[in-house]
Amino acid sequence: MTKPISGKIVAQHNSRDSCWIIVHGKVYDVTEFLDGGSKIILKYAGKDATQEYEPIHPPSAIIDNLPPERHLGPVEEGTVEKVEVRITDEEKARLQRVEARPPLSEILNLHDFEAIGRLTMPEKAWAYYSSASDDEITNRENHAAFHRIWFRPRILRDVTNVDWSTTIIGHASTMPIYISATALGKLGHPEGELNLTRAAAKHGIIQMIPTLSSCSFDEIVDAAQPDQVQFFQLYVNKDRAITKRIDMRMAFDAEDPHEIGKSGSDKVDRSRGAAKAITGFIDPGLKWADISWFKSITRMPLILKGVQTWEDALEAYDQNLAGIVLSNHGGRQLDFARSGIEVLVEVVEKFKEKRGITFPNDRFQLLVDGGVRRATDVLKAIALGATAVGIGRPFLYAFSTYGVDGVDHALQILQDEFEMNLRLLGAGTIKDVVPDMVDVSNIRSHLVTVPRDRLYDINYESMQHARLRDTKAKTKL
Amino acid sequence: MTKPISGKIVAQHNSRDSCWIIVHGKVYDVTEFLDGGSKIILKYAGKDATQEYEPIHPPSAIIDNLPPERHLGPVEEGTVEKVEVRITDEEKARLQRVEARPPLSEILNLHDFEAIGRLTMPEKAWAYYSSASDDEITNRENHAAFHRIWFRPRILRDVTNVDWSTTIIGHASTMPIYISATALGKLGHPEGELNLTRAAAKHGIIQMIPTLSSCSFDEIVDAAQPDQVQFFQLYVNKDRAITKRIDMRMAFDAEDPHEIGKSGSDKVDRSRGAAKAITGFIDPGLKWADISWFKSITRMPLILKGVQTWEDALEAYDQNLAGIVLSNHGGRQLDFARSGIEVLVEVVEKFKEKRGITFPNDRFQLLVDGGVRRATDVLKAIALGATAVGIGRPFLYAFSTYGVDGVDHALQILQDEFEMNLRLLGAGTIKDVVPDMVDVSNIRSHLVTVPRDRLYDINYESMQHARLRDTKAKTKL
Amino acid sequence: MTKPISGKIVAQHNSRDSCWIIVHGKVYDVTEFLDGGSKIILKYAGKDATQEYEPIHPPSAIIDNLPPERHLGPVEEGTVEKVEVRITDEEKARLQRVEARPPLSEILNLHDFEAIGRLTMPEKAWAYYSSASDDEITNRENHAAFHRIWFRPRILRDVTNVDWSTTIIGHASTMPIYISATALGKLGHPEGELNLTRAAAKHGIIQMIPTLSSCSFDEIVDAAQPDQVQFFQLYVNKDRAITKRIDMRMAFDAEDPHEIGKSGSDKVDRSRGAAKAITGFIDPGLKWADISWFKSITRMPLILKGVQTWEDALEAYDQNLAGIVLSNHGGRQLDFARSGIEVLVEVVEKFKEKRGITFPNDRFQLLVDGGVRRATDVLKAIALGATAVGIGRPFLYAFSTYGVDGVDHALQILQDEFEMNLRLLGAGTIKDVVPDMVDVSNIRSHLVTVPRDRLYDINYESMQHARLRDTKAKTKL
Amino acid sequence: MTKPISGKIVAQHNSRDSCWIIVHGKVYDVTEFLDGGSKIILKYAGKDATQEYEPIHPPSAIIDNLPPERHLGPVEEGTVEKVEVRITDEEKARLQRVEARPPLSEILNLHDFEAIGRLTMPEKAWAYYSSASDDEITNRENHAAFHRIWFRPRILRDVTNVDWSTTIIGHASTMPIYISATALGKLGHPEGELNLTRAAAKHGIIQMIPTLSSCSFDEIVDAAQPDQVQFFQLYVNKDRAITKRIDMRMAFDAEDPHEIGKSGSDKVDRSRGAAKAITGFIDPGLKWADISWFKSITRMPLILKGVQTWEDALEAYDQNLAGIVLSNHGGRQLDFARSGIEVLVEVVEKFKEKRGITFPNDRFQLLVDGGVRRATDVLKAIALGATAVGIGRPFLYAFSTYGVDGVDHALQILQDEFEMNLRLLGAGTIKDVVPDMVDVSNIRSHLVTVPRDRLYDINYESMQHARLRDTKAKTKL
Repeated sequence: MTKPISGKIVAQHNSRDSCWIIVHGKVYDVTEFLDGGSKIILKYAGKDATQEYEPIHPPSAIIDNLPPERHLGPVEEGTVEKVEVRITDEEKARLQRVEARPPLSEILNLHDFEAIGRLTMPEKAWAYYSSASDDEITNRENHAAFHRIWFRPRILRDVTNVDWSTTIIGHASTMPIYISATALGKLGHPEGELNLTRAAAKHGIIQMIPTLSSCSFDEIVDAAQPDQVQFFQLYVNKDRAITKRIDMRMAFDAEDPHEIGKSGSDKVDRSRGAAKAITGFIDPGLKWADISWFKSITRMPLILKGVQTWEDALEAYDQNLAGIVLSNHGGRQLDFARSGIEVLVEVVEKFKEKRGITFPNDRFQLLVDGGVRRATDVLKAIALGATAVGIGRPFLYAFSTYGVDGVDHALQILQDEFEMNLRLLGAGTIKDVVPDMVDVSNIRSHLVTVPRDRLYDINYESMQHARLRDTKAKTKL
Repeated sequence: MTKPISGKIVAQHNSRDSCWIIVHGKVYDVTEFLDGGSKIILKYAGKDATQEYEPIHPPSAIIDNLPPERHLGPVEEGTVEKVEVRITDEEKARLQRVEARPPLSEILNLHDFEAIGRLTMPEKAWAYYSSASDDEITNRENHAAFHRIWFRPRILRDVTNVDWSTTIIGHASTMPIYISATALGKLGHPEGELNLTRAAAKHGIIQMIPTLSSCSFDEIVDAAQPDQVQFFQLYVNKDRAITKRIDMRMAFDAEDPHEIGKSGSDKVDRSRGAAKAITGFIDPGLKWADISWFKSITRMPLILKGVQTWEDALEAYDQNLAGIVLSNHGGRQLDFARSGIEVLVEVVEKFKEKRGITFPNDRFQLLVDGGVRRATDVLKAIALGATAVGIGRPFLYAFSTYGVDGVDHALQILQDEFEMNLRLLGAGTIKDVVPDMVDVSNIRSHLVTVPRDRLYDINYESMQHARLRDTKAKTKL
Repeated sequence: MTKPISGKIVAQHNSRDSCWIIVHGKVYDVTEFLDGGSKIILKYAGKDATQEYEPIHPPSAIIDNLPPERHLGPVEEGTVEKVEVRITDEEKARLQRVEARPPLSEILNLHDFEAIGRLTMPEKAWAYYSSASDDEITNRENHAAFHRIWFRPRILRDVTNVDWSTTIIGHASTMPIYISATALGKLGHPEGELNLTRAAAKHGIIQMIPTLSSCSFDEIVDAAQPDQVQFFQLYVNKDRAITKRIDMRMAFDAEDPHEIGKSGSDKVDRSRGAAKAITGFIDPGLKWADISWFKSITRMPLILKGVQTWEDALEAYDQNLAGIVLSNHGGRQLDFARSGIEVLVEVVEKFKEKRGITFPNDRFQLLVDGGVRRATDVLKAIALGATAVGIGRPFLYAFSTYGVDGVDHALQILQDEFEMNLRLLGAGTIKDVVPDMVDVSNIRSHLVTVPRDRLYDINYESMQHARLRDTKAKTKL
Repeated sequence: MTKPISGKIVAQHNSRDSCWIIVHGKVYDVTEFLDGGSKIILKYAGKDATQEYEPIHPPSAIIDNLPPERHLGPVEEGTVEKVEVRITDEEKARLQRVEARPPLSEILNLHDFEAIGRLTMPEKAWAYYSSASDDEITNRENHAAFHRIWFRPRILRDVTNVDWSTTIIGHASTMPIYISATALGKLGHPEGELNLTRAAAKHGIIQMIPTLSSCSFDEIVDAAQPDQVQFFQLYVNKDRAITKRIDMRMAFDAEDPHEIGKSGSDKVDRSRGAAKAITGFIDPGLKWADISWFKSITRMPLILKGVQTWEDALEAYDQNLAGIVLSNHGGRQLDFARSGIEVLVEVVEKFKEKRGITFPNDRFQLLVDGGVRRATDVLKAIALGATAVGIGRPFLYAFSTYGVDGVDHALQILQDEFEMNLRLLGAGTIKDVVPDMVDVSNIRSHLVTVPRDRLYDINYESMQHARLRDTKAKTKL
């Protein structure tokens, strides 16, 4: 074992020319990573960066990606100057709020996790999880689109026993949902994505492992139960052979999570950073012709995520993929992209017209994500032909507020909602949830009301109700 | 008569193993009811539960449903420890507000009862009456749907005499409305549903008696005038023969009204409770094939409530029922179910197409409920083919605030509105209110506006009016 | 001349059995008027009622309508007990605001009069002028409907000279507007309707004299210039022969203006009063068959006001009337009646289809009223086929705030707006304002958005702009 | 050189009869300009008007437009009474806010400039730049219309290299945008329009020089780089030969910018002033027949700005113009005129139908302006057939807040947005942005929601989230 290095020595390597950092008690020379222009690394030059490194990278990332000769060895205990952590008044108030979280029994729906999360999560986590691109219009439209679909419930059907289990790409699921891949789980909770893995096991549903997870792929797979099915989300790197072991997550430094914060909370040049990030670690040259290469290297079923038109859906079908995810990436990419649920309607319609096939369809499955908060949202997608629906942010808020128990509780809420709503719909099983059960005629209506004429509006003196007689008791309303 | 039991003895039976309660001075052993998991019963184990029992159960419920050997006899006077009733400051303020209610002459429309009720009703009553399921979207849509229907009034018709009486399932009614069945009337007023019975008699309209009334069926029927017509709402129990006399209202304990409260006021696991409740006391196995059994046991006309599609309406017609109520149960069941008034349009259209019949139609009557606040709402339904319209919550608010006089006044408001609006519509009688008098072309438009871009909106500096010159007198606006 | 009566004697006649009042120094026995149930008369029994009488009745009303034997003669000077007029603090503040009115040069559009009026008018006048029926939805829809019509302006047309004069029912008007008949002008200003007469003369437009004016018909006619054209609005009384001289305005007592106040400001039983009033002094038995009788007694052209469907418009045409006013009476009658501008579209369409005629049309003119605030509103109606548009409330606010000068200024604003907007539209004259210049495709869209799910909405944390650096200067936004 | 004139002498010429003013140290007799009724000139009679003159007129305007004999010569130094400039508290606060502007790196999108501008710009500049005509409905609709167009992005296309340069009327542009002509640049920044010229040069885009610029045409052209392309906006004066050298900008005095202020901030008779101004200096007699005359005097391509219907677009095409700008002049002219982007859809549709041609089209180019804030807005117009899009107000806010650097930064933001959004759209070049990439089906929907019934709405008690337990930490939400 190498001789421990004094913290004072490390502290001298604090510049572009020589930049050392300490992570988990080891010293690394990361000077070569500075080329990417990452201000964030330089900020910790000569210091202990563990706390900053932790939520963004899997433990092995630095070891794997840095040549062995840059692993300089352990730091000498007690020699590293403590980075004085100032707990701001704001942070103190937040920690008090964390203590004041209500018991899980008071969390009645998925919205509630977000409400508590907003008050109790570290600002950085809240900002990253809740934000989206440009004016965040697609992000909110994802949810709003479900409100343009209404139910046509049937009555007097025997729904003594209802069963909402299903099969997704050949794998059983107790519910027609799966956990979407979302990045940087440790921002919200020290166990990160493992919270999702464990709750998914308990409830018998599928987790999609994100490329940009905080936990390593191995950690997440190891946390799974023996028979637990997981999907893997693959962001395709430029270097298709993946011989260079630059972990994508390192590249993510180029998009310092400090910098992805909601505009207003962390004011930095977000748009340029994002543009660069996409250029930097996701291959913008990926094209239809590459699909055959992927099929040549794996026997696993391939699903294409991010399809947003029937034309691309048809191409995926013609290329014999196993399915697609109709998704706009949670509103994080092109603003004014339509919601997955709206695209679903168009896809089903055109497949019928162009290929004569209907959905759900085992040979080619349609998955949808974005904006889901209730089992009724899911059932609308099912009625329209989807096999299952991905849910992402709500589970992030669930583990950020209550850890694995939060995710478990969130899934139980959904289980209960499925049971009740299947009964109310008059459907005994998922197969009984059919197109006639929804009115989808307004789905394409992207309406904007005419700007109001304020001069008229503020002249209007609103009607008022009957009022209590004049007493001091009038304060409530 | 049995020897009175000391309150101290009763107090010892306060556990799952032996649970006694006192109601109206009598002691009961209700241990066997604990199996349903009712926390609420256990809360009163060994104590006087009268006050809690009163608004939820008819007086005879416990006597009827508990085997005689569990009727332990009277409690010894003066031996029951007084449950100290703390009147909170909030409750004191509410009682002051009750005192400050305006005179009925200031209540100008049905909205006003709700406004006063919100300020003066016990929180539990307000929470239960005003709440609905999930995001309460269907609940509000019920009212909003009427706003998408506009009038085409006719002029220069002799409306010196107008007459808005009609016939509902063969029974005369002074107005084309009836009182919908609603549960737990004593939460709002000690006389509960009897307020409705009495006011209905005075105004010559029909009351639908709820299955889950606070007053007993007998009490309600007894309160009726000799010739007063009442309808009975039947929730069908699993045990079709109804030999077991478990009153449904006992089962309701499983859904403690404390627990049905609006989320936010009483934070408990609402969704699971509701799911269980439905499973527990309404038979989810009820199906079309059972209709013939019902027809075999009664000669009364049968109306099917809760129809929400033309398909089910047609089935009801083909099974020779007397009519249907197009209803989503006040938005208390499946959220995003459409309003009754919207379904009415589809039903009338399809009956014309499929069976060639038009409405109103004596052989098969269409009733509608949900969201009605004005006689104009009712007249829209009439124009579209309904025979009558059910009104529920407004009458609950009316008796919760002013007892029977409130309901009487509410009905008088409607009488006056019918008179005036029939004249303004150019219709002498209910039969003159025809489809051409409404424009219903927007009824299916479930619109959601595109999310606003706040960055643009808050940059817009609204125009302002001419302003008073600079004096101290400017404060009003 | 009769001997003056002592005020003390008058004061004794203060009951239902004998009710005397003093108006303009004369004593009247109005006991017989009490049958109508008018509380307001009784309030002044035995007292000087002049101040209350003044704004509601023309001076001669009581003389004309009361039999001579009830004219008891002059009251003895100095014997009437002064009714102590308490000026409330609220009234003092209002009078200060009146003093603070901005100069007319700061009144830029018709909205501005209303804004100033709201702050400075007597509460009773504001309440009566601004209110409408039920939920006041039609009242606001009248204005909103214009916002669904958009312009298609033409360019490169020589608009050096523009001319917006026109001819209404054969009479020249400098603008395609007229002053609608509105009731109770003296509530807002001591000169009442005469303000309108005088300003109309100055601007060469037509005033429609209301049946329920505060000033007498003779006063209004006398105030006109020799060649000034006036229209007369006729509310038809039950007693068609008009032999009984009960002035309609007396009947109006049944609808005490105190009682017509906006709900909330004066809490009384408004709906029943209004219903009775309509029954009481406007003949609800008036029918199409009566039209010929009207034509037999006058050679003046007859226009039918209040038409709201193409069916009735067609009937009026077939009965050879000179024209119609498409109107819902300013939203004061049937709520959810459609706006005049919307009905116009349907009428023009159906006349083309049924009779092959187009508009504008001299033989049968279409007038429209309701919700107009800008010359652009008027031009939309003109483009769609109207001959002229009636404007009512804005002129009431204009004279209530600035007397005749206000109305003059309001009309000048309209003149200027017509000049500018005709140029911008590319139309040299009113005839050049044609259907192609408007897009009316949304006119029938009566849309209501889906109720929002508040749980989602309040979780959304709005984006924020760039902010100033932290200084004390941030307060403005 | 003339002998300097004493300020005291000048001060005596302060009336309608003789009105002298000092500008840049020279004395001018401007008595003859008073005929236009310009109060603003009279306000400075006998005084130094430089500060007021500066932002509105190019330096040479007074020299060019006043006959030499009215150039009275230099004023004697030190003799002019200093106009005491009172800096109000409000102005002091504004100057503090100017100091607190955030660094440009915190300006993330075009909205941000406006947000900072609103807080830091001189009130007069903000009022003039941000205002529009009537109720400013068209002004806001211009932006809102883009929200009714949604994207259909394509995936798996090689977008490694993306290129958003294009050619506008034969001239290369690095982006499919140009800088619209906007008036009175010096109100916002001393360098006025030169800021735009310089930033346009740096980014290789085209500036349209306004007729009513603060800087002179020569100054703006001189500031351009040798090869920099500029367009010139020509407001056509009545005197077509332009022999009389009355600079239009002098005429603009008739519309004193003080008087164009947003109603509410500067209360003057805006509508009449605007009507007069249009009559005064833009020839309302301009007509299609004049086009040939313009073509006869220049060989430069002519583009017609302000086209708002397909009919006029077709006429422009048939008259062989080089293109048109679909524009409603930023909502500053006819309110309720439709947005350029909406008109674009109609124009493209009708050209296909009437002439069989499609867009973009080199022979006849379609430009659009109004309401643009994001590259996505531009890309929507491109997809629909526009060649380029004009952007105006955002650049005014950019230089008003940060001078030329602001405009440079604004353009860089757009460059970055184009790069990212082309990738996300799946388009390698501007030519790949095709109609199928947008859903424009809602573009004609000018919707207004039904007025809400406040009585119902305020009775609704909104659902609430789970809440923190009762601690003092609850304040954040």
